[in-house]
Amino acid sequence: MPIKANDPNRKSWIPVPENSDFPIQNIPFGVFLTRDDVITIGTRIGDHAIDLGSLHQLGYFKDIPLTDDIFLQDTLNDFISDGKKTWRLVRNRIAELFDVRNDELQHNEDHKQVILFTMDEIEMQLPVQIGDYTDFYSSKEHATNIGKMFRDPDNALLPNWLHIPVGYHGRSSTIVPSGTPIRRPYGQTIPKGEDKPVFGPSKLVDFELEMAFITTDANALGEPIDVQEAEDYIFGLVLFNDWSARDIQKWEYVPLGPFLGKNFASSISPWIVTLDALEPFRVQSPKQDPEPLPYLRHKGNNSFDIHLEVDVTPENGESTTVCKSNFKYMYWSMAQQLAHHTVNGCKVNSGDMMGSGTISGTTPDSFGSMLELAWQGTKPVKLNGGEERKSVADNDTITMRGYCSKNGLRIGFGEVASKLLPAIESNPPKKNK
Amino acid sequence: MPIKANDPNRKSWIPVPENSDFPIQNIPFGVFLTRDDVITIGTRIGDHAIDLGSLHQLGYFKDIPLTDDIFLQDTLNDFISDGKKTWRLVRNRIAELFDVRNDELQHNEDHKQVILFTMDEIEMQLPVQIGDYTDFYSSKEHATNIGKMFRDPDNALLPNWLHIPVGYHGRSSTIVPSGTPIRRPYGQTIPKGEDKPVFGPSKLVDFELEMAFITTDANALGEPIDVQEAEDYIFGLVLFNDWSARDIQKWEYVPLGPFLGKNFASSISPWIVTLDALEPFRVQSPKQDPEPLPYLRHKGNNSFDIHLEVDVTPENGESTTVCKSNFKYMYWSMAQQLAHHTVNGCKVNSGDMMGSGTISGTTPDSFGSMLELAWQGTKPVKLNGGEERKSVADNDTITMRGYCSKNGLRIGFGEVASKLLPAIESNPPKKNK
Repeated sequence: MPIKANDPNRKSWIPVPENSDFPIQNIPFGVFLTRDDVITIGTRIGDHAIDLGSLHQLGYFKDIPLTDDIFLQDTLNDFISDGKKTWRLVRNRIAELFDVRNDELQHNEDHKQVILFTMDEIEMQLPVQIGDYTDFYSSKEHATNIGKMFRDPDNALLPNWLHIPVGYHGRSSTIVPSGTPIRRPYGQTIPKGEDKPVFGPSKLVDFELEMAFITTDANALGEPIDVQEAEDYIFGLVLFNDWSARDIQKWEYVPLGPFLGKNFASSISPWIVTLDALEPFRVQSPKQDPEPLPYLRHKGNNSFDIHLEVDVTPENGESTTVCKSNFKYMYWSMAQQLAHHTVNGCKVNSGDMMGSGTISGTTPDSFGSMLELAWQGTKPVKLNGGEERKSVADNDTITMRGYCSKNGLRIGFGEVASKLLPAIESNPPKKNK
Repeated sequence: MPIKANDPNRKSWIPVPENSDFPIQNIPFGVFLTRDDVITIGTRIGDHAIDLGSLHQLGYFKDIPLTDDIFLQDTLNDFISDGKKTWRLVRNRIAELFDVRNDELQHNEDHKQVILFTMDEIEMQLPVQIGDYTDFYSSKEHATNIGKMFRDPDNALLPNWLHIPVGYHGRSSTIVPSGTPIRRPYGQTIPKGEDKPVFGPSKLVDFELEMAFITTDANALGEPIDVQEAEDYIFGLVLFNDWSARDIQKWEYVPLGPFLGKNFASSISPWIVTLDALEPFRVQSPKQDPEPLPYLRHKGNNSFDIHLEVDVTPENGESTTVCKSNFKYMYWSMAQQLAHHTVNGCKVNSGDMMGSGTISGTTPDSFGSMLELAWQGTKPVKLNGGEERKSVADNDTITMRGYCSKNGLRIGFGEVASKLLPAIESNPPKKNK
């Protein structure tokens, strides 16, 4: 089935500002609360959100096999379960309907009144109910930086890293959409040179620049997914800030991996951009040497050229772009990650989320975490207002953006922006009973 | 509110065989498919399952504030969300209704016809939709055994172990109820002395004897739970077999923890036994030295005396009990685990599951995994039929049982039994298209 929605000549009758992440060729999917306090599934063109629930009720999707309430839900899980063929039919239909050459809806003021919202009229929600969340560790530069800092600089990568897309399970319940403030977490840490831990707010809160993909129902328990087919089970991508408390993580993570140092919060951008929309921006992954085992080998362009950047904005202060990176730096592709994840028969469901791991490039200004940017505190990051940072400070807002750009077409992700609030005053909290 | 259901003098008009795990003092909660292919929430007395959905429709819970469909669901999550007061009201009412001294239902053949099932008429389901699953590592004997085998025998425990209830996130999507067969997983392993991994079915599949508790909605994002109150948010316990592929785990787990070596399958017993039912069997946890940090200190009897055992049964063979252990050996209590898990503000939801980690005692016959029982293959476990085991063999069934017993009262968990099927023939599977 052709991806008609990607036609670069298509223009929408909804105005699209210059450099918008959301031209009619994007058509991301999200969930929002409308001005009437109704939850609906929607898409976005320019600075307008479109209520797909109402659009479907008004009959605009009548030629596509969809259940009546598929968009009148508070998550995209059921729609994602419908599979790639349906996603593409819906995306193509939206592109057609909002095309400036199409009169079906363009001049129907009553219908437009119901389905169109300006962004300030709505409140974006978490787009999916995330059953399971896995985080990979697939940037070679990031893994190398960590190895140099904490292990052997001459032998920075661990023996398994070039053979396995290393990953681990994370916590789904604390994944929140852009805009949700994050609390500085408490935890145990081990003071340098001591052998007894202390308790208090983390002193080393960090961001991690990641992207994450959302899957559909992919397999039955016990059935692996072939790497050649893995992309068929990926609905789309979001920006992902994997908040980390480095001091808590350091004391807790041996031998079973990161836990409380990560699960206090993780933030995602609210619009899921489909793989179809990213199709024009395919590029090759970095060459893999040694060649991976056969179940991880695939041909073609399995990565995407997505520019990424991170801003730090102090309270009432100026923003500073502290990192510019790119999704294409990832050593392991999403298809390899999903094939590896299921090679043992692990079941993947609709709405599961898989993070890339911190995405760092080769140059110091492309490192995807404050830990790497400030090189363990030895090279503080200078902000435009004159302040310095070795980690995220109270009331800093961290904003991540991502977009693709080629031949005049820009497809973007918007942003994931979240503010770090100071720690709660006492822990456990005092009771007022 | 008194736990009337625990009255040891109460007898049911439903026959309860001698040594049954399910006297009228138990009243566990589960979900089952009836002979009419209807899913309902139910409980069990003796060898009969009781359809609580029908019981509620017939008006037997009219004095308890419950929504009409609370038991007509395919998971217990909403009922668990109702909170401890409601659980206790329902459990007390069930105890009253099925008491031999109560005539309300006992002689109403029409109603009994609708609500009572023999166990062979129903099919037990997963009792909750598990949002997030965490596995702890809280048996000191188990952690010490692992340390002796894989690290330094004289320094077996890692520095953080006596300060932190060490835990990590697991995979929810592959948790299955007792009776679901498990496939031997494929994966990467590293042959001894080699530096390149190979691919194939795991050669070291193991069981892990654990228990797991199920939580209710406990806190908002950013809010810790006080250790003194933590038990109020624990609905009950199940038996838990945390299947493990030791060879896959060994190669993958550094530095981010176990992943594919664990997430191919985890099995639980289908009846959740409430903390209320376990109340008569409270005991002290082992003395903790050093004293933990204040947020982990609690008073009273925070553990339970639950006898545990594991049987190995080869295909068409005789069963052998290979392990006898006890839940009370756990160094860290459930309250400490939950307080630790939320001390950073991590949100816990209704239906989340937290595993204990492998429960080993001090004597070799109390070790909770084949890895420890056969001490890394050096002491093969002898089965009654004459065979030996260093790990689980194809078509072995692993059965775990657990029960409390005191002053003539026995409260048990039934069993979690699952068969290990041989690996699939080819991976990725050959297509017949």
